[in-house]
Amino acid sequence: MTTRYQYNHLLDLLTRLFVEREVSQEVARVTAEVLVEGDLLGHHTHGVKLANGYLLDLEANHAKGDHGILELTQRGPVSSLVDAHYLLGPYVVQQALAKCSQAAQEFGIGVSSIKRSHHIACLAAYLPKIVEQGLVPIIMSSDPAVASVAPYGGTESVYTPNPIAVGIPGRTHPMLIDVSMSVITNGSVAKARQEGKSLLHHVLLTPEGTLSNNPEDAFTTPPATILPLGEMAFGHKGFALALMVEALTSALSGFGRKDSPTGWGASVMTMVIDPAQFGGIEAFLDETDYLAEQCLSSSPVNENAPVRLPGQAGLRKKVQYLEEGLPLPDDVVAALRQAVGRSALDNLVL
Amino acid sequence: MTTRYQYNHLLDLLTRLFVEREVSQEVARVTAEVLVEGDLLGHHTHGVKLANGYLLDLEANHAKGDHGILELTQRGPVSSLVDAHYLLGPYVVQQALAKCSQAAQEFGIGVSSIKRSHHIACLAAYLPKIVEQGLVPIIMSSDPAVASVAPYGGTESVYTPNPIAVGIPGRTHPMLIDVSMSVITNGSVAKARQEGKSLLHHVLLTPEGTLSNNPEDAFTTPPATILPLGEMAFGHKGFALALMVEALTSALSGFGRKDSPTGWGASVMTMVIDPAQFGGIEAFLDETDYLAEQCLSSSPVNENAPVRLPGQAGLRKKVQYLEEGLPLPDDVVAALRQAVGRSALDNLVL
Repeated sequence: MTTRYQYNHLLDLLTRLFVEREVSQEVARVTAEVLVEGDLLGHHTHGVKLANGYLLDLEANHAKGDHGILELTQRGPVSSLVDAHYLLGPYVVQQALAKCSQAAQEFGIGVSSIKRSHHIACLAAYLPKIVEQGLVPIIMSSDPAVASVAPYGGTESVYTPNPIAVGIPGRTHPMLIDVSMSVITNGSVAKARQEGKSLLHHVLLTPEGTLSNNPEDAFTTPPATILPLGEMAFGHKGFALALMVEALTSALSGFGRKDSPTGWGASVMTMVIDPAQFGGIEAFLDETDYLAEQCLSSSPVNENAPVRLPGQAGLRKKVQYLEEGLPLPDDVVAALRQAVGRSALDNLVL
Repeated sequence: MTTRYQYNHLLDLLTRLFVEREVSQEVARVTAEVLVEGDLLGHHTHGVKLANGYLLDLEANHAKGDHGILELTQRGPVSSLVDAHYLLGPYVVQQALAKCSQAAQEFGIGVSSIKRSHHIACLAAYLPKIVEQGLVPIIMSSDPAVASVAPYGGTESVYTPNPIAVGIPGRTHPMLIDVSMSVITNGSVAKARQEGKSLLHHVLLTPEGTLSNNPEDAFTTPPATILPLGEMAFGHKGFALALMVEALTSALSGFGRKDSPTGWGASVMTMVIDPAQFGGIEAFLDETDYLAEQCLSSSPVNENAPVRLPGQAGLRKKVQYLEEGLPLPDDVVAALRQAVGRSALDNLVL
């Protein structure tokens, strides 16, 4: 049986571990919140499991914890450029989204471009709070220090899975979208490898141009690459969308692959749109719910698998987990135990 | 041998045909320009071929040509809401993009939400002019009166292919992205059917839940649907991205599927971002070119098919076609001849 962990307990544990590594109280709390939110929504590869890596990067002095180093250039009331100097990503993104939300409510839209953030965790985790305010958050992210996906038609990796996340307010059917522009993520490949399992589909491309479902192939020299969304027949579309993400994250911030960064990081674009400044929030919510109902009532291919809407399973899990506790997979607990093991704090209980 | 048509000749011909149907001079010229630009970039299903349908819709008094009916609600300097009352789409979108470009140069970004536009033709056709100014245009579109794509896991169509277009400025490698969130478009299905050909891939899903490459299946009752990008294994991603497009087009404008519109139309979002207001245009162009070179030098899967970047074949065609004339496919010429055949104008030569 999987042990269940209480939300407040995990939040407190992570906050203390971050503060021990000289992370500012507020940065520690926000980072802990975003990580736990990832697990609440069921994204265990991008939840509290990441804390161990963040702490190791803080210990190595690559990731930073002092909120004072965040450098914000506000060029006007609507847009801003942020140099995060590798401050923990969840705090950086929350700050940017707060600025964007404020701008959106006055100007219809707000946008921030962020360079040199540290890793930003689960993109979906940022969405619920903003969606609940009737606003539409959009986040795109890439890591200019990493390459695991090849351009369509190529066999050498150039870029990252490049996720796009969007929150869509609805009365009974709000949606949380968080999808990468590659067929699967680096995290899924690493997880399958760790478990000694094959991937469910042949979505790796070897340097010889053959398809593989063996995660070990992604760790040879030269490595296999992850296919773009659309795979061998329609991968030009996933490739194009990934190039869009590269442009709106790295190129827009002025810092990217051309600068050959090393170490875990992220180029990020955050945007918030306020429907009240366009066709009105009531009409927006009505349209979301109408479309959702149309989708849910589409006859399923498989009778036992009705159509699902993005994020809704996650939101149901969140309600349940807040009540009954969070069931963390073994690999997540093992990662947390490593972090706890390196701590000198008393009374740390996992 | 395919006959080649001169750019100015086609432009003049279409402009005259639109003006004959009481389209304002400026609306006629812009619409003709956008349609011919589609063919210049090689997108013959979404170029001048569409003029015949637009003229038929003007004759039926569904499409409108009087620029005066465009209703623009400017809520501030950055965002606007447009009710186009089914004015010809190319003019509507050009007007919106001009507003967005102006806003972007002052505030970093500009955004317009458009409801009740008539069809907006080839999205890529709007991009070159803005990209040449060092700006990043983004266009999304859906038609709330049409449904041809089923939600992932479902067999009944709910929405349209929902394209996303983005222009990325570069010194030697600018890119034009224009991709639908379904594997193929309605236009491709219709073209294969007209030519009596099978589709290249099994990307239609019959009401019984089986895959098909027979375009006739999309015209039975009930019809087969087009698969979302990602197909049977990863279609939840294309579905999610299509829901994002629905939200940012129809829901944002306040007018969509809930209003059960009939007749050819479009909900549109246009956005322009100015890199100069973020990390700077020089760094943006450097990053684009660096990434492009990385992609182009990735060893190809097939030695005879090097990696290609989105829009670059189209931009090369444009240069060539402007010089040597436009080679229009037979189905395009046939559609133009129908339009010319209904005209009472003298001296119309195709």
